Amino acid sequence: MGLYMSIVRPCGRSFDEIRPVKIDRHFTNNSQGSVLISIGNTIVLCTANIVEGVPDFIKGQRKGWLTAEYSMLPGSTNSRVSRESVVGKQNARTQEIQRFIGRSLRSAFDLSFLGDNTIRIDCDVLQADGGTRCISITGAYIAVIEAISWFNKKYTIINNPIVENIAAISVGIVDNNILLDMNYEEDSNCEVDMNIVMSNSGNFIEIQSSSEKKTFDKRKLDLMLSLAEKGILELISYY
Amino acid sequence: MGLYMSIVRPCGRSFDEIRPVKIDRHFTNNSQGSVLISIGNTIVLCTANIVEGVPDFIKGQRKGWLTAEYSMLPGSTNSRVSRESVVGKQNARTQEIQRFIGRSLRSAFDLSFLGDNTIRIDCDVLQADGGTRCISITGAYIAVIEAISWFNKKYTIINNPIVENIAAISVGIVDNNILLDMNYEEDSNCEVDMNIVMSNSGNFIEIQSSSEKKTFDKRKLDLMLSLAEKGILELISYY
Amino acid sequence: MGLYMSIVRPCGRSFDEIRPVKIDRHFTNNSQGSVLISIGNTIVLCTANIVEGVPDFIKGQRKGWLTAEYSMLPGSTNSRVSRESVVGKQNARTQEIQRFIGRSLRSAFDLSFLGDNTIRIDCDVLQADGGTRCISITGAYIAVIEAISWFNKKYTIINNPIVENIAAISVGIVDNNILLDMNYEEDSNCEVDMNIVMSNSGNFIEIQSSSEKKTFDKRKLDLMLSLAEKGILELISYY
Amino acid sequence: MGLYMSIVRPCGRSFDEIRPVKIDRHFTNNSQGSVLISIGNTIVLCTANIVEGVPDFIKGQRKGWLTAEYSMLPGSTNSRVSRESVVGKQNARTQEIQRFIGRSLRSAFDLSFLGDNTIRIDCDVLQADGGTRCISITGAYIAVIEAISWFNKKYTIINNPIVENIAAISVGIVDNNILLDMNYEEDSNCEVDMNIVMSNSGNFIEIQSSSEKKTFDKRKLDLMLSLAEKGILELISYY
Amino acid sequence: MGLYMSIVRPCGRSFDEIRPVKIDRHFTNNSQGSVLISIGNTIVLCTANIVEGVPDFIKGQRKGWLTAEYSMLPGSTNSRVSRESVVGKQNARTQEIQRFIGRSLRSAFDLSFLGDNTIRIDCDVLQADGGTRCISITGAYIAVIEAISWFNKKYTIINNPIVENIAAISVGIVDNNILLDMNYEEDSNCEVDMNIVMSNSGNFIEIQSSSEKKTFDKRKLDLMLSLAEKGILELISYY
Amino acid sequence: MGLYMSIVRPCGRSFDEIRPVKIDRHFTNNSQGSVLISIGNTIVLCTANIVEGVPDFIKGQRKGWLTAEYSMLPGSTNSRVSRESVVGKQNARTQEIQRFIGRSLRSAFDLSFLGDNTIRIDCDVLQADGGTRCISITGAYIAVIEAISWFNKKYTIINNPIVENIAAISVGIVDNNILLDMNYEEDSNCEVDMNIVMSNSGNFIEIQSSSEKKTFDKRKLDLMLSLAEKGILELISYY
Repeated sequence: MGLYMSIVRPCGRSFDEIRPVKIDRHFTNNSQGSVLISIGNTIVLCTANIVEGVPDFIKGQRKGWLTAEYSMLPGSTNSRVSRESVVGKQNARTQEIQRFIGRSLRSAFDLSFLGDNTIRIDCDVLQADGGTRCISITGAYIAVIEAISWFNKKYTIINNPIVENIAAISVGIVDNNILLDMNYEEDSNCEVDMNIVMSNSGNFIEIQSSSEKKTFDKRKLDLMLSLAEKGILELISYY
Repeated sequence: MGLYMSIVRPCGRSFDEIRPVKIDRHFTNNSQGSVLISIGNTIVLCTANIVEGVPDFIKGQRKGWLTAEYSMLPGSTNSRVSRESVVGKQNARTQEIQRFIGRSLRSAFDLSFLGDNTIRIDCDVLQADGGTRCISITGAYIAVIEAISWFNKKYTIINNPIVENIAAISVGIVDNNILLDMNYEEDSNCEVDMNIVMSNSGNFIEIQSSSEKKTFDKRKLDLMLSLAEKGILELISYY
Repeated sequence: MGLYMSIVRPCGRSFDEIRPVKIDRHFTNNSQGSVLISIGNTIVLCTANIVEGVPDFIKGQRKGWLTAEYSMLPGSTNSRVSRESVVGKQNARTQEIQRFIGRSLRSAFDLSFLGDNTIRIDCDVLQADGGTRCISITGAYIAVIEAISWFNKKYTIINNPIVENIAAISVGIVDNNILLDMNYEEDSNCEVDMNIVMSNSGNFIEIQSSSEKKTFDKRKLDLMLSLAEKGILELISYY
Repeated sequence: MGLYMSIVRPCGRSFDEIRPVKIDRHFTNNSQGSVLISIGNTIVLCTANIVEGVPDFIKGQRKGWLTAEYSMLPGSTNSRVSRESVVGKQNARTQEIQRFIGRSLRSAFDLSFLGDNTIRIDCDVLQADGGTRCISITGAYIAVIEAISWFNKKYTIINNPIVENIAAISVGIVDNNILLDMNYEEDSNCEVDMNIVMSNSGNFIEIQSSSEKKTFDKRKLDLMLSLAEKGILELISYY
Repeated sequence: MGLYMSIVRPCGRSFDEIRPVKIDRHFTNNSQGSVLISIGNTIVLCTANIVEGVPDFIKGQRKGWLTAEYSMLPGSTNSRVSRESVVGKQNARTQEIQRFIGRSLRSAFDLSFLGDNTIRIDCDVLQADGGTRCISITGAYIAVIEAISWFNKKYTIINNPIVENIAAISVGIVDNNILLDMNYEEDSNCEVDMNIVMSNSGNFIEIQSSSEKKTFDKRKLDLMLSLAEKGILELISYY
Repeated sequence: MGLYMSIVRPCGRSFDEIRPVKIDRHFTNNSQGSVLISIGNTIVLCTANIVEGVPDFIKGQRKGWLTAEYSMLPGSTNSRVSRESVVGKQNARTQEIQRFIGRSLRSAFDLSFLGDNTIRIDCDVLQADGGTRCISITGAYIAVIEAISWFNKKYTIINNPIVENIAAISVGIVDNNILLDMNYEEDSNCEVDMNIVMSNSGNFIEIQSSSEKKTFDKRKLDLMLSLAEKGILELISYY
């Protein structure tokens, strides 16, 4: 247990401390849900729109769908990142992240209330300082709640579509120390990078763990998971 | 002259009145210039970054370059717009607009101070309510000033690179009335749509006028141009 | 007024003189309209075809549509230009030009006679020596007249679909001289490049003016516009 | 031998008669070779340009290269054909044809005189009425001769680079009749479609024979080949 | 006739000898036809699947269609070949080959038994040592037979859909020697490269002959064709 | 512990039983490593090639790189899957999987022995019945060993580049039962789908867990992880 307790992070946080959270709801008004979320220096605009139609594979089942897209604005990083529309395609990392966001949020809602409609989430990173995929999930969750509320005003939803509150956070190992909610500098030097999506009941939704540089044992895994749980419950307290 | 004076606009503005202007400088900190500009309900994030290298056609001339990219975030409009990176290419309107932004800003600066570097501008529309291309130019102009200031701190620029202050505004004819700074509703019903880029000396940089629905005569053109001049000088007063 | 009168152009033309015009109607016979137009050394093949269907955004309105495509053949310029189908997309300039051609021609015709059909214009530049976009509009206008005539023979059009005769011309400022109908050499050295589409009544349809190198004042604008009008009325006299 | 002699073709030609040939040399002047060739109603503009550089696979061998591109203009056929640059790629037929043109012409010239330069051929079909790939080869051959002549004036070529005069023609079987130089109507109903490239010595360069509908025996093959030879020698007589 | 008889091939085969043939039928079980064919060191997996739907151009005619796709796995050649899905498109050679395979097999079957269904053939080269396109045709022919047999069990086909047994083989001229069934080394040094598809009755289906390096006369053509016939009949004996 | 013990799987396996493993080493000979691996009905061809050059981001560091590509052959599944080269891009799932394979294998080897070379892995699924990404990793690991052995023969490697033996396996929850090494039928009905890459020392390399349908608690996670360890150690025993 003593493993990670003595660490002093360059940013001044303790090993188990998340960055300051700021949530601006209804940030823009052309989308049904619109949340500007900042956690530390990472800023993401999450919008949610309910649009007509569902993908072919669930047509005729009269249950809705939810899908997400993700992007980093070119000026969001220290060295300008190429605009994917100019490159001509989304890169593999982008696609991986937006699938991750979509799967996570589909687990949080019972979409049958939607009929043949789809919730389309857009997460656009205005500034990136680590944790963009997790922060996107947390912000998008709130944007979906806003969109559902708009839908409810218009059509009245019979049953509560919220299965569980969810949030996401990263945890990693840097110089052998386990750290919660890594910023960019920590993330780019970590040995293990884990992204966890959990519900308010402490159940797992997604675990994505990579350790290209150094493998790790079960004891460290358990520590990381409990640290993640602490962070996620804290995030959910902002809802 | 009486032609357009009696009009009452649904938004409450007079025919020659621009919308409220809000300029947040240094909005994000990973870009050298970063401006969040709102004019009415249109919100654009304009970033400017000075990056190494110049296009092939000016290589070896030791003068810099400036280029711009433009995008509308999917949630920026009333009905979600497709993400161009998913479609696989920028559409023709997008490309036309970013060329327009780039040409306009290149006229405002003497780029020889840059050496073999390029100023890369990114204009991302967070919310669209008419005039996005003109507002992008106005916001990007300020972002470039910020980036030049950063560059000056680092390398010291000998000569003032600013040729002229510039700004851009739209003017149009709606139901036979000439209107300054059209919002989305006015723009989508107009007979003539004109975008004008001018310098603080009242000189022309760009004129783009389209009138698919109804042609117009020289007298109306003159009225539109003088209305645009009024708006542009007002915008420049915010610098 | 004396501003531009003393200029001697390398090509021997006076400042307000357009190049020789040659119009070969019915140049090929697989298209309903087919015009080979040469103005000076610029040669464009303009074809017009009436095809079934209209774009989604006007479906159900029972009014036709008109759209244009533009291309420069690889061998049309001094140094071979890349074939866009090999590159994999039309470049931004091409797309800008074809939108310009389409908008201009839609203003010239009342397309309601077409029913659910579309006039598709193709402008392919066989040889380029300046002014290709304007010459495309002028040639395409005649090709559309041919296609309408074919349609009229087949189905009988009740009302005259021609709103106004239109033509297009460039005017620019080179070494401080205002010149009508610039060739390639003049165009590539000009300070101001303006393309104007006008009707036979002298009304404006499109104005596209760029001045990356040097801004200009209202007096010069007025001179350019009146020069353009002279050229356009001369072109329309060939119809 | 009597097999194909009694046929009366709808176009009035005998089974072994090629269509009228018209060759306009130096058709445009921005390319070093430029030939407008019409055979019957098929019209192809063939240009040849000598450009710097060679493909990677022959770099350092100090021998030149020759490559070809082919395209059908959208208005060249009875029902407008999609522009490949809009579709986003050249279709398989186009690519097959331009490889066919390139291979054929490389066999006709000893390209070592070129140094590290490449002859780029462009064949753009202005009007299509059958035989476009063969007519492209014949026209391009003459355009290359023009380009070589231009090159010779500039640099003086020591050895004659022409290996053999070549030309190409189609021959097919329609309703069991062997026909030379099929037009579009014949081609779209044929059982066997063969394209042959030959030299003036009667040697074979390319044979491409397809018979999706009906196979054929050696005797018919021999008849087709001798018919092709007759046509090709006639074409070469125009050089 | 003595022309090619004395040749000793590095691989030990005589000029008219094909490589060892190995055909593994029903190689995988998720496709209706699945054949792993090896001829010498060339190994191709050919699968055939009958899928719903036909291309637009034969819709409503109630006759089926057959189409083929071809690919070389990246590790199939001596120097790794780029994966076409990563490049973003099939190259011209690939498209040419798969059109060749499709045309050849459509000639072998009367597809009217299929109704509105399509036989989709996939030829994936696991190891390439010359002759991949011909070996693909031969293997695919057997895979189609398997798929038809599956279809027959399910729906009962009234008439025999096999028009003729077909197979394909290459023949070429290397150092003036005519050789049957060239391997990669022979193929990459050949003066003439010919691919021939024939039926068991000795009729021609496809002839594709290229001779970029050296033209050839009718006598050699006849020798090559008779050599090909010998090889094809031998291949068909394996069915 | 009793949670998952009573389950009877339709395939006859017990909950903790992996499918039969078959490894054909040196399956083809044009690649330096080539392994055909079958686990149950899933068959993957894994090749490894050492090619010149490294990606830009590690240039100049004189350490090698390893990267992987993955594909499912069109006929590998029950209903034919579209060929990605025809679609024009790799889909998101494919890209996610090949990144997963690449990261996993980079953790297993110290690539500094490679100099400025890259190991390129290709995993092509000939038949898919669940677990393709994990089986690809296991097969590719052996193919890399083969390629390293080839490299060693040629250049002599000073230090052993193998950090740890690794293998990968899936584990999931189906109808509340935890199952090792799911086949396609199990996988498509599972509530939780987890892919785990581990080393022979039982350390974690990658954990990817999704549970779109039903979240799960820590106790189940622990059971899944220990089941995975059992399977992975068994797979490694085949090396």
